[in-house]
Formats: sequence, C-alpha cells, structure tokens
Amino acid sequence: MNLAPLSRLILEPLVRAALVEDLGLAGDITTNAIVPPEVETQALFVARKPGVVAGLDLAKLSLELVDPSLTFSVAKPDGTHVAAGETIATVSGKAAPILIGERVALNFLGHLSGIATATAKFVKAVEGHKAKIVCTRKTTPGLRAIEKYAVRAGGGQNHRFGLYDEVLIKDNHIAIAGGVTAALRRAKQHVGHMVKIEIEVDSLEQLREALSEKPDVVLLDNMTPAQLAEAVKIIDGRAITEASGGVSLETAAAVAASGVDLIAIGWLTHSAPTLDIGLDFPD
Amino acid sequence: MNLAPLSRLILEPLVRAALVEDLGLAGDITTNAIVPPEVETQALFVARKPGVVAGLDLAKLSLELVDPSLTFSVAKPDGTHVAAGETIATVSGKAAPILIGERVALNFLGHLSGIATATAKFVKAVEGHKAKIVCTRKTTPGLRAIEKYAVRAGGGQNHRFGLYDEVLIKDNHIAIAGGVTAALRRAKQHVGHMVKIEIEVDSLEQLREALSEKPDVVLLDNMTPAQLAEAVKIIDGRAITEASGGVSLETAAAVAASGVDLIAIGWLTHSAPTLDIGLDFPD
Amino acid sequence: MNLAPLSRLILEPLVRAALVEDLGLAGDITTNAIVPPEVETQALFVARKPGVVAGLDLAKLSLELVDPSLTFSVAKPDGTHVAAGETIATVSGKAAPILIGERVALNFLGHLSGIATATAKFVKAVEGHKAKIVCTRKTTPGLRAIEKYAVRAGGGQNHRFGLYDEVLIKDNHIAIAGGVTAALRRAKQHVGHMVKIEIEVDSLEQLREALSEKPDVVLLDNMTPAQLAEAVKIIDGRAITEASGGVSLETAAAVAASGVDLIAIGWLTHSAPTLDIGLDFPD
Amino acid sequence: MNLAPLSRLILEPLVRAALVEDLGLAGDITTNAIVPPEVETQALFVARKPGVVAGLDLAKLSLELVDPSLTFSVAKPDGTHVAAGETIATVSGKAAPILIGERVALNFLGHLSGIATATAKFVKAVEGHKAKIVCTRKTTPGLRAIEKYAVRAGGGQNHRFGLYDEVLIKDNHIAIAGGVTAALRRAKQHVGHMVKIEIEVDSLEQLREALSEKPDVVLLDNMTPAQLAEAVKIIDGRAITEASGGVSLETAAAVAASGVDLIAIGWLTHSAPTLDIGLDFPD
Amino acid sequence: MNLAPLSRLILEPLVRAALVEDLGLAGDITTNAIVPPEVETQALFVARKPGVVAGLDLAKLSLELVDPSLTFSVAKPDGTHVAAGETIATVSGKAAPILIGERVALNFLGHLSGIATATAKFVKAVEGHKAKIVCTRKTTPGLRAIEKYAVRAGGGQNHRFGLYDEVLIKDNHIAIAGGVTAALRRAKQHVGHMVKIEIEVDSLEQLREALSEKPDVVLLDNMTPAQLAEAVKIIDGRAITEASGGVSLETAAAVAASGVDLIAIGWLTHSAPTLDIGLDFPD
Amino acid sequence: MNLAPLSRLILEPLVRAALVEDLGLAGDITTNAIVPPEVETQALFVARKPGVVAGLDLAKLSLELVDPSLTFSVAKPDGTHVAAGETIATVSGKAAPILIGERVALNFLGHLSGIATATAKFVKAVEGHKAKIVCTRKTTPGLRAIEKYAVRAGGGQNHRFGLYDEVLIKDNHIAIAGGVTAALRRAKQHVGHMVKIEIEVDSLEQLREALSEKPDVVLLDNMTPAQLAEAVKIIDGRAITEASGGVSLETAAAVAASGVDLIAIGWLTHSAPTLDIGLDFPD
Repeated sequence: MNLAPLSRLILEPLVRAALVEDLGLAGDITTNAIVPPEVETQALFVARKPGVVAGLDLAKLSLELVDPSLTFSVAKPDGTHVAAGETIATVSGKAAPILIGERVALNFLGHLSGIATATAKFVKAVEGHKAKIVCTRKTTPGLRAIEKYAVRAGGGQNHRFGLYDEVLIKDNHIAIAGGVTAALRRAKQHVGHMVKIEIEVDSLEQLREALSEKPDVVLLDNMTPAQLAEAVKIIDGRAITEASGGVSLETAAAVAASGVDLIAIGWLTHSAPTLDIGLDFPD
Repeated sequence: MNLAPLSRLILEPLVRAALVEDLGLAGDITTNAIVPPEVETQALFVARKPGVVAGLDLAKLSLELVDPSLTFSVAKPDGTHVAAGETIATVSGKAAPILIGERVALNFLGHLSGIATATAKFVKAVEGHKAKIVCTRKTTPGLRAIEKYAVRAGGGQNHRFGLYDEVLIKDNHIAIAGGVTAALRRAKQHVGHMVKIEIEVDSLEQLREALSEKPDVVLLDNMTPAQLAEAVKIIDGRAITEASGGVSLETAAAVAASGVDLIAIGWLTHSAPTLDIGLDFPD
Repeated sequence: MNLAPLSRLILEPLVRAALVEDLGLAGDITTNAIVPPEVETQALFVARKPGVVAGLDLAKLSLELVDPSLTFSVAKPDGTHVAAGETIATVSGKAAPILIGERVALNFLGHLSGIATATAKFVKAVEGHKAKIVCTRKTTPGLRAIEKYAVRAGGGQNHRFGLYDEVLIKDNHIAIAGGVTAALRRAKQHVGHMVKIEIEVDSLEQLREALSEKPDVVLLDNMTPAQLAEAVKIIDGRAITEASGGVSLETAAAVAASGVDLIAIGWLTHSAPTLDIGLDFPD
Repeated sequence: MNLAPLSRLILEPLVRAALVEDLGLAGDITTNAIVPPEVETQALFVARKPGVVAGLDLAKLSLELVDPSLTFSVAKPDGTHVAAGETIATVSGKAAPILIGERVALNFLGHLSGIATATAKFVKAVEGHKAKIVCTRKTTPGLRAIEKYAVRAGGGQNHRFGLYDEVLIKDNHIAIAGGVTAALRRAKQHVGHMVKIEIEVDSLEQLREALSEKPDVVLLDNMTPAQLAEAVKIIDGRAITEASGGVSLETAAAVAASGVDLIAIGWLTHSAPTLDIGLDFPD
Repeated sequence: MNLAPLSRLILEPLVRAALVEDLGLAGDITTNAIVPPEVETQALFVARKPGVVAGLDLAKLSLELVDPSLTFSVAKPDGTHVAAGETIATVSGKAAPILIGERVALNFLGHLSGIATATAKFVKAVEGHKAKIVCTRKTTPGLRAIEKYAVRAGGGQNHRFGLYDEVLIKDNHIAIAGGVTAALRRAKQHVGHMVKIEIEVDSLEQLREALSEKPDVVLLDNMTPAQLAEAVKIIDGRAITEASGGVSLETAAAVAASGVDLIAIGWLTHSAPTLDIGLDFPD
Repeated sequence: MNLAPLSRLILEPLVRAALVEDLGLAGDITTNAIVPPEVETQALFVARKPGVVAGLDLAKLSLELVDPSLTFSVAKPDGTHVAAGETIATVSGKAAPILIGERVALNFLGHLSGIATATAKFVKAVEGHKAKIVCTRKTTPGLRAIEKYAVRAGGGQNHRFGLYDEVLIKDNHIAIAGGVTAALRRAKQHVGHMVKIEIEVDSLEQLREALSEKPDVVLLDNMTPAQLAEAVKIIDGRAITEASGGVSLETAAAVAASGVDLIAIGWLTHSAPTLDIGLDFPD
C-alpha cells in the first residue's frame, strides 16, 4: 500500500480549530487547577477493539500544538491492523498538555480509525475478486480530505473529491438534459481533456445508450448481482464499472462476484462507528 | 421542548467551508456542462427511514449560499419524528444551484438527524425514569456546536461544551493530585463561582471520599445497575448523579432504573449512523 | 495564586493580528531605513508606575513572531507587584525586530497590567472580608480571554465568559417572563445540569421570590451596603451572593462588609487605565 | 467636521468576532430559555453621562448580524455631544435578538464614545489656540481603525496609522544611527516621495541639528511649555511642530499656548474610560 | 461556448481581500475628504483597446461590496470580443463608493480580460486545426480559479487545476523512478480510477516506451513541428497528445498543423499583459 | 540599495494560500505515487533569461512550509542582476517536498523577478536624469505588498500603497468638487498632518491653479516631454513633480529629460512578463 501522508498544511488548520473549539477562552480549567506544571508522564494510545489505525499525524499534531516539547512515537503506523489491547503510539512529557490535548487527539484518531476499519472489512469481504472498495462524497462536512485518507488507510480507493474533479452524471442531470445521450454529449463538449466522465445508469437499456457515447466509467445503480453481471458482460471492458447502492458487508462478495471494477460505499464515511481507542496513563 | 435555533453566525462558517470543500476551484463541472441556467424545479427532502429531524437550518443555508433566490420551506421542523417516506422540506427555484448544493445540504441534514434519531431512541428507552440522556465531548472535530444541538433536537441534554465551562475531574487528575480529596480541594480553590465541579469515581469508596468534599455532580463510571443503585442511595440527593461507560440501548433502561439523574452516551456523537434522507426531483 | 498561562493557541492569533495591523503592507519603514540589520542590543521592560504585571506571554510573542531568534527573559512574572522603576523583563538580540515589535508588545502588556493593577487595588480594598472581586462581560471586543486572565493575575475571579456558560437572568428577562418565578422555572427546565443559574434582583421582595426557586447565585443590583447586609441575612447561605452596580474603590470595603460573596466590577475591564510600562534601550 | 464612516468591510469582521466571542458554541442560553421568539419590543440606547457619541455603526451591526430584521434608527449621530439621559438611538423588533446583541453593541459604543468624549475634552481645553489634538499608536490591539475613528469623532486628528505610513525617528533610532543628522539622511534616502518624515527631539540642540535636514514634522518630547515656545520660535514655520509626553487636561492649554501645531495624547486610546451608555427597555 | 460563472463563494473572499488591501484602516481619504456623500453619478467601463472581456462578476462584486445599493449592468458579457471604445458595463449610484471600488474593479477586470484576450489570439492562430489551447499551473499565486476561468472565457480549455486532480509525470519523476515504464506503473498502481495519467516525453524513444503502458495523455515537450507530427503518427490515437514548450503566437499554427490535440501555453496566465479598460465618468 | 525584507508575518499567509491552492485535498498525487520518501536530491534555481531577482524569501517559504528540513541557500540575493544560466539559489533535502513545492516557489519567484527586471530596465532607461521610477495601485489583487517590494528590488520606488496613506486627487474628484482649488482646500481641511497631498493636472492652466494651493506633489498626466518640461519650469521646485500616462521604455528617457522628479509606470505591476526561472535537478 502506498499511503502518502497528508501535508501538515492540510491537517494543521483542522487540528487548530478542534483544539480551540475545546479550549474556549478559559482553557482546560480542570487540569489548570489540579495538575502541577512540572509533573511528567508517559501515556499510551491503546486499541480497545481490533481495527485498522488511521489518523496518527492528527493525534500527534493535537498534542504538539498544545506543547511542542511532547514526544510522540508511533508503534503501529496508519494502515496497520491492530488487536484489542495493542499499543498504537506513545506520548511522553509534561502531563498537563497531554491531558489538555487528549480528547481532540482521540476524537480524530477514533473517527479515522473507524473509517479505516470499516473499509478494511469491506476490502476483506471482496477478497479474491478484482473489485476495489471506493468511498463517495457523503463525507462529514469539513473533513473530506482526512476521511478519504482514512479510506485509503483501510485499503480502499477514493472516488472523486468534489464537484470539480470529475463529471458524474446522475439521474437528475439526465432528466434535465433529456436523456443519456444528450447528457453525455454536453459533458464531452464542455469539459477539459484531463477530466473523466462517469454516468449513472439504472437499467440495461440506459447502459446500452450510454456506452455508445463512450463514457470513462459507468455507475450501475441499485442493481442486483445478476443484473450487475449482465451489465459487466454488456460493457465488456469498454468502460470502468462501478456498483453502487446499499451494498453491505453481507452482500459485498456477491456484488463483487459480478465482475465490477469498483464498489462504492457511502457508509464508510457517513456512518462507520468510531474505533474505540483510549489513552492509558501509568497507574 | 425548547429547541432554540443556533445563530447563523455559528452556522454560516461551517456551511461556507463545506461548500468550498465541495466546489474546489472549478465548481460543479457536471451541472455547469449539462443543466441550462434557466431550468427551474422543485425538490423534496424525503426521509428514507424513520427518525428525528435535525439540521434544517444548515440544509437551508447550504442551498441559499449557492443561490439566495432559492425558496426553502420546512414541513417537519427540527425535533420532529418522521416516518419513512415523509417529506421534511421543499426547495424551489433554479435547478442548477439546487443540484450544486444538494450533497452538502444532505451531508449536514443526514449527520445531525442521525444523532437526533439515536438520541431519541435512548430517550425512549429510559422513559418512565427520571434519567436524562446526555452527550459527551466525544464529538466530530469542528462540529461540536451542531452535534450538541442535534442531541437537544433528539430530546437529550448537553454535558459540558469543552474544557472551559465545567470542572470534570477524571482518574488521571485524581492520580496526579494524590487522591479524590486533594483533587476536589484544588478545584474548589481555583475555579470561579459560576463553574460546577464534577468528579468521576470508580468505586463506592471513592464516592464516599468525594461526597465529603461536596462536588456538584458525581460521574459513576462503568458501574453495574446494582452498583449504581447503591451509589445513588449513598449519595442521597447530595449531588447530581451521572452514569457513564458503555451504556447501550439494551442496557439503558436498567441503568436508568438505578435512579441516576443522567446517563452519558458518547456513542450519540461519535458513532450514530446517518439518517437516510434523499432529495427527490420530479420525474 | 494559581495563574495557569493561556494556551498559545489562544494568544497567537491576537498577536499576529496586532502585528499585521501595525506593519501594514510596507512594514516598519523607519527601522528599515535607519537600523542596520546586524546591530544587536538588549532592552528592558521597565514599570514607570507601581502595579501588577500581566501579559508577559503576549509581549514575548509580539517580539518572537517578528524574530524567533530574540531572547526574552522574565524578571517579574504575571501576577507580581512591581514598584516604579523595576525591570519586568528583558529582551536581547537584533535591534531591528525589537524596535518593530516594541509598540505591540507594550500595548498588550500595558493594557493587561492596567487591568491587573486595578483588580489588585479592589482586592486590597476588601481585604479581611470574604468577598471576591469578579469581572463582567463588559470587556473590549475581541480581547475577553486575555482581559479575564488579567483579572485573575490581579487576584480577582472571573464571572461567566459569555452568553453560553451560565444563565444570568436580568430585569428584562424577568419582565418578559412575567416575573421572577416564571423566569427561574423556564431556565431550570431548559438548561443542562452543568449550568449554574443566577438571577438579578432589585429588591428584597424580588429576592424572597427568587429564593423559593433555589437559584445558584443571586445578583444584588444597585443596593446600599445596608440593603446588601439585609439581603445576605435573608439568603442565609441558600445561594451565592453577588453585589453589583457602581462599586468604586471608595465604597468597596463597605460593600464587602455586608457579607456578600462576590463584588462585580465592570470598570476593571472597560475603563481601567493602562499601566505605564516602557522599553528602555541602553544609552 | 467631516466624519466619513468606516467601510462595513472594515467593521464587519470586528463585530462578527465579538459576537462569536460572546455566543460561544451554545448561544445565549438565558434568552433562549426565557424569551419566547415572538415577543417584540423597542429599546433605547441612552447616555447615562454626558459625552460625545462614536460607534453607532458598530452597535447597529452588532444587532443586525444577530437578526437582519431589526430596525435601528439614530437620534444622535457619531460626533454629537449628548447630555446625560438623552436617547442616542433606538432599536425595534424581536426582543430575543436585541437581548443577544445588547452587550456587544454596548461594549463597542461605550468604548468608542469614551474615546470621543475624552478627545472632545482635550479639544475644548485648547480652544482658541491653533493646536490640534492627535492620537498615537498606543491603541488597543486589533481596534486601531475604530479607535482612530473615535478620535476623529471627538474632534481630534489622527497621527500615523502604523509603522508603514510615516517615518517617525525616535531616540533609539537616533542612537543607533549615530545622531540626528545621520538618521534623517538615511530616512530621506530610503523612503518614497509620498512619505512624510518626523523626528523626535529632546533638546533644542537636537532640534537645531534636525532642522538643518528639513524634516516634515518635529516631535518635541517631554518639554515644558516654555521650552516648547522657544522651540516653536526656533523652528519658525520650517516644520510642523508636535508636542508629546504626559500632556493632561490640566496642562493642555499651557502646552497649546506655546504655539505648537499638534499635541499628541496617547491616553485617548489607551486609557480613556468608557462612556456609560445603557439600553433601556420599556417597563 | 459554455462559460458557467464561478460561484460567489469562490469570488467573494478574493474581492474582500483586495478591497481591504486597498482601504487599509483609514479608507479612501481622498474621496472621504472631497466627495459629498449625496452626489450620484453613472460611470462606464470602456475598453481602451480591443480584446475579450472576462471578470465582470469580480468588477461587480468590487463595487457592490463597497455599497450594495449600486446598480451594475453588463453590456458585453464575459467571453465577448470588444472593440476599442466600446462600453462593457455601466455602474450607477452614489459617486463615492464608485470611486472607492474603481481601482479594485479595474485591477480584476483588466487582469482577467488580458488573459482572455491573449487566449483568444492563440485560439484564432490555430483556427482550422483541431488543437485546443490550454493553460498550465503557472498561475498567479492565489488567483488560479479566476485565471483558469479567464482562459475559458477566451475560448481555451483548462489543464489540471493543481497537484491533486491529475497525474502528470515529468522528467524528474521519471529520473527518480528509473524510467518511463516504472514511473507509469507506479502511477497506475496507486491512483484511483477517476484520475487521468499524463506523462511528459522528450524523445520519440521515450514516447514509444510510454505508449506501451497506455497513458491517457502524452505531453510532447519542446519538440519541433516535424517531431510533433511524427509523434502524433506514432501515437495514432492511442493517447491524447499535448504539445508544450515555448509555443508563441508566431509558431502556434505550425505546431497545431502537426495534428496534436492540445497546445499548452504557460504564458497565458503568467505573462499576458492586462487589457486596458477604464472607468469613464460623465464630463 | 536598502532592500529591507518583508516580514514573514506578511509573506506566510500568501505562501500558505498558494500551497493549499495547489495541493487541494489530495495533495501531490504524482509525487506521492512515484517518489520514494527517502530519496534525496539537490536542485538549482537557474535563470533562463537575464534579469533582476526578487522573491527569494517567498520561494524559500514555499519549500520550507512543505518540509521544514529542506535547506535553501541563496547565491544571488533579491535585487541582483543575473545572466541567463546563472544559479540563483539551491535547495537540498528530500526530493518529494522539493517537487511538491516547486511550482509555487517558481510562480512567486518568476512573477516578482519579472517585475524587478522590468523596473530595472526603466531605471536604466532614465539613467543620468534625476527621475525615479515609481509604481502605482494597478497591482494584482492580493499581491500588492510583494509587488511593491519587487519594484524596490528593481531599483524603483513606491507610490502610495492604497487609498489610505496619501491623498491623490484625480480628475473625477476635481469635477465633483467643482475645480482644482475647491478640491485641494477640502483635502487640506480634512486630512491629518502626516498625509501628503497630490493632485493630477491635465493642463498648465490646471497646474497654475493647483500650485496656488501648495500641494505636496503634482501628477502631470499624459503630457508630452515638452509640456512636462514647461510644467517643471512653472513649478520651479514648489512641488514634487510626477509624470504619468503611457510612458514606455522607448519614451522614458525623453520624459525624464523634462526634469520631472518621478515617472509612474502602471505596467510594472499589471503587465510585466514573468522572468523565466527553472528548477534544475541533477541528471
């Protein structure tokens, strides 16, 4: 896997905003009242449940922006499967800033590891098939960059990042254009050479019409595995094929067996539960 | 229920950021290519599953910031239970801006309605008991204000909003202070008169020690319903009681039956799945 | 005194904005024209008048953000009383960045030390009584966090930080609610368990009505010391008591002698004059 | 007086920041709990003490950004002298947003009117002399634009706005340059034709040296009225003359009588007390 | 041409920043001093030289953000060829805000119309050939969205918008990868299905190696028209072809005659001179 | 030349915005896919054409903000003339961040060096005359600070930075005021003592009228060299003289020979072509 880290230029504003959201104007009044500034400690990020890690750079930044003198060391990098009880990372230094940054660090790490873990389950479910698991634009507002990264950490691939980097013609566009052919022609005529064009089709009839306009990708929406298999046969390599619509862990293998290239799962980014990770201090 | 709306001053930066995240530098290249600017339509926000609505102001803003001339009307206000298939709101006007803002509007609305729906289930589970359902600081980074609002829309109450507005003494604070008594005394000495003090206790022994320092609230962490009931008896009205730790829909009633005042559920904001809401255009 | 420093995450945006406000697009054209970049110096922050120091972290940041290589060392930390002529801190390094950051550093330091000094005078005036001096929301727009910090540096305590962290029912709320009882009941019904409720009363009659609804704090507005003493007697420990309204250095001791717990002084943050502090360069 | 209003582009970010500072994440929990959204009212901004008004645009924005449907009408525009008890402005509409925005509106209005009132007192003190009252760079961090505006509203004039728009050579610059002549020559050589050059002198000897290099303005620092008069005589119209250093309301007339063109008063912006203005609701 | 307007969400921050840059803290001191607020006028945006218009939405916003009551009407929309002396747009209303916003409006309009005009010249130069004119990432920092829009207004097409939306393998990537084949295989393995892959080749030998890995686009760098023609023949429709490197208005037709699909011109966005447009007031 | 560097406080927001613009949400997908993180290199910024360097601090920041461990060393500082082929600066360290930051670094460096080079050509053209070359407010929106810096790097001087730091009375102001005299008197009456006043005149008649009101600077608009010479004679040292309007490299010497103090060239900042600079990696 090639999991290139996101630039700090992208991560830092998110972490600053989250820390300021938690600190308010008065800061951590509990820690300020109780923890003497000179106390030092070492704390461990430990997985309470098995899963795939994602978001360590954000956890690290959450602590370092509170106190740059903290030392953060990674035991299980992003993309690693961990068992319950395994230590993911360690932070050492002053106790006060660790306690101040703890919740924000865990909120990022749990959320992204939850997405990576969910993705990895789907990836495993379709093992042996060529289908890739991809995410959608159904992401948490403001967190798209890091959620798409977490999907990659879980072994998935990314679909388009926004409205700007791919044409995806949906049913409403087709209806307004007056049909699949008209919609694809307008798209081809207007967008640049670097942009791929995908079209959503609901039926094999629409599919055949679409294929004659040579889209790069066809989104096969809400089809049964049998319909998908027939669609794949009709397409016969003339376009990339993507299945979409209510695919669950239970149905993923059957969908993949249809021979589609991609399976899109909105659930990965809009509903995957957090991975339970805690920060353990020494007794 | 008193569900005062959040100020547009709080919501608008979130919506702008989400729209810019989706638009990038080039905008919606699909809609720009295919949808003639003069086409008008009316579209319906429809619940695909039953649940509780939250986030309509954000959905409205997501569309109005794309085109202020759109008309958005609400059928089921925030806090309302809806059945699958019910229309929540309607938007009319130019088709292009509706298509451009659709996904951001749905991402906000689905996320917050998911939290409200989850909260409402817990509220229902403890019906007949005095316990209130409260959320925690385990929120999505950057979205705390609106997620806590969604908890209120679902009938829950909010715990502290950040590190700044309440003292919450946890096990690590106690360990560093050298005990419950020392921790509570330091807190009382240092914080202002407007701040409440809560302490987390793991055992009845810690509880008794804590009570002698008169905290405002006691967090009873990871106790069984029987232990909770005994703790409530010991406390005997001398502090607000809050149960916390792995409470699920299945166990919530038993926990509530212990007589605690509050049950804290981190899951509401870190893992509740989205409520499936779609935007239907006319055929 | 426990004067926990404010997080750099809170201070840095304020200092950056102040420096950019002073630098404009062209920077310090005087220093750029006259001061050779290699010249080094050491300069002393010296109190011209006696007072209490507050804001050294802001002064330090004002210089370090201009040139991180400057060395700033503190002789009299925040919260310390200084005599006229005493050195508060020293900065060494390149002369040019010291001259560039000087005014912003002094503007922060003088303003906050002015507030701390004023607070300390009130604290001293009520010495021997149990009353604490507290500030209000009458702060300079944008500077509330640091002004409230300066009050703590001067030995005072903070009242609520904003509209969000405490209920404070004022005369207009009471009028709209239709009375003290109705206002308190609405408040109790709607806010969470972590929020304290305070009510402003103008008469002993209102006070008695309020007490029967058990507010956490009672604000005794514009009462004479004699009225305050009677109010304290009536309350008899059933609520925290706060005196408010035109208390001056001259009247503070008499007000405190009434036995109130708190005295609120808006003047500390809206009108306290700056403490005269200069930056002295070697001859 | 020509008191051109500041652009909303300059004011709006300040007001938004102040409102968000006061609202936090939860908003005005008191008003939300107690004030029914449909209640309407009319409230009056009333001067409790005599003074000069400044900052009405900021007060108006503070209310309109909470609720654009509020109606704000001005009785005494910025720059007007008001007596105690006079109504300055009126706001009508929903009671809730008026209560929410009240404190921020008053914080801006009181602060700026305080500066305008202080300025007007100095202007009156030097009446009959040609001296103008000017402010300095000793302003509240972040509020320079509006504080300098308030000085103009009080009848004063502005000195430079920052380090970027004028050369002001101070003692430290002179010391580093190796003398008045060298400092002035370096300045003349390096800055553009649109920039005026001012130099601070402490003695008549320095003054004479400075004059031979033809500065635009001479700052006569900490001189007695007699010294100032002699300096003015020496200068004899060859430069604008500015007196500076500890001028008070008591000494201002004597200083002005020396014949200087300008008197700089840092106190106007760093220490002028707020003008007491209240918002009165109907009984 | 399909010149969909950029969202105001993208344009408004650019215009606000430009206006604040020009207004500083004091605003337009000339207009404030001289122009009575009640004076009204009508002014015309007039082309002083022939060209293609682009940026009217920015000019409009530059005026409306100063004063929303101004009326802006467009005579020659973006993308229109205008002759010298032709009126492009009209603005009516108060004279003061028109004078205040004039320069920012003209700076945007002249800059973008300059790019559109330059693009149109290249488009005309290759008329009769299939080659499209495309821009590059050599844009003015911060203005990429609007400069790429101006290229479209001039009849050109956009290349990738940033590092994120296309793979473009350049000579340095090839050198580090150890050759064209290795570079293309790594790219294919790592990027998602929605991303196109382009590779820069310097020789026909590199071209042949690249083609066997089936890139979407081949960038033919610094080749003569004859070399380009041979390359096009070799590629034979197996990839989109793009010529790049020092193409000028004089050489564009010969390059296009080679049969390439695209000609990339960095000069359009990094060096095209402004189109001279003025704002004429009535005499 | 005294080319004081701009503060990092001014430069850093520009560079961050440019990098984020280029990185989007996904980052540099080409480099991430192809370049192993451990590969190191050294690359040279090389002038492809002769010119004057400006913007090295921006190029350095563009790389350091991507990876602070990169080493950037300058061979030819800002303001230096370089020949084609000369190395301007070197960057060493990890290859990936160098490739990621390369384009932004070059976009800044090429743009500013283009302005400096153009300025230097005009400076050379008027050599032997006293006239200084100055720029205008016709700058690229958002980049005024750095473009004015580049003019200084090329040996030019800056005119006013915005609407706020000088009065410049133009034809429209004169028309609205009802004449040159009225306009100048209003200006003198309203602006502070630190502000210079310039007036644009189109004829010798207007010039004579203006002189009687003693402006600091006279802008002689669109006059021939002969007219300018006569104007200079009339003015006879009573005001600074500035020629403006369509001055080109061909006509600059003749204009300078008229004896004017300043020649304003808008072209320097709105239309100067980029200086061609490349980043060369080792073979």
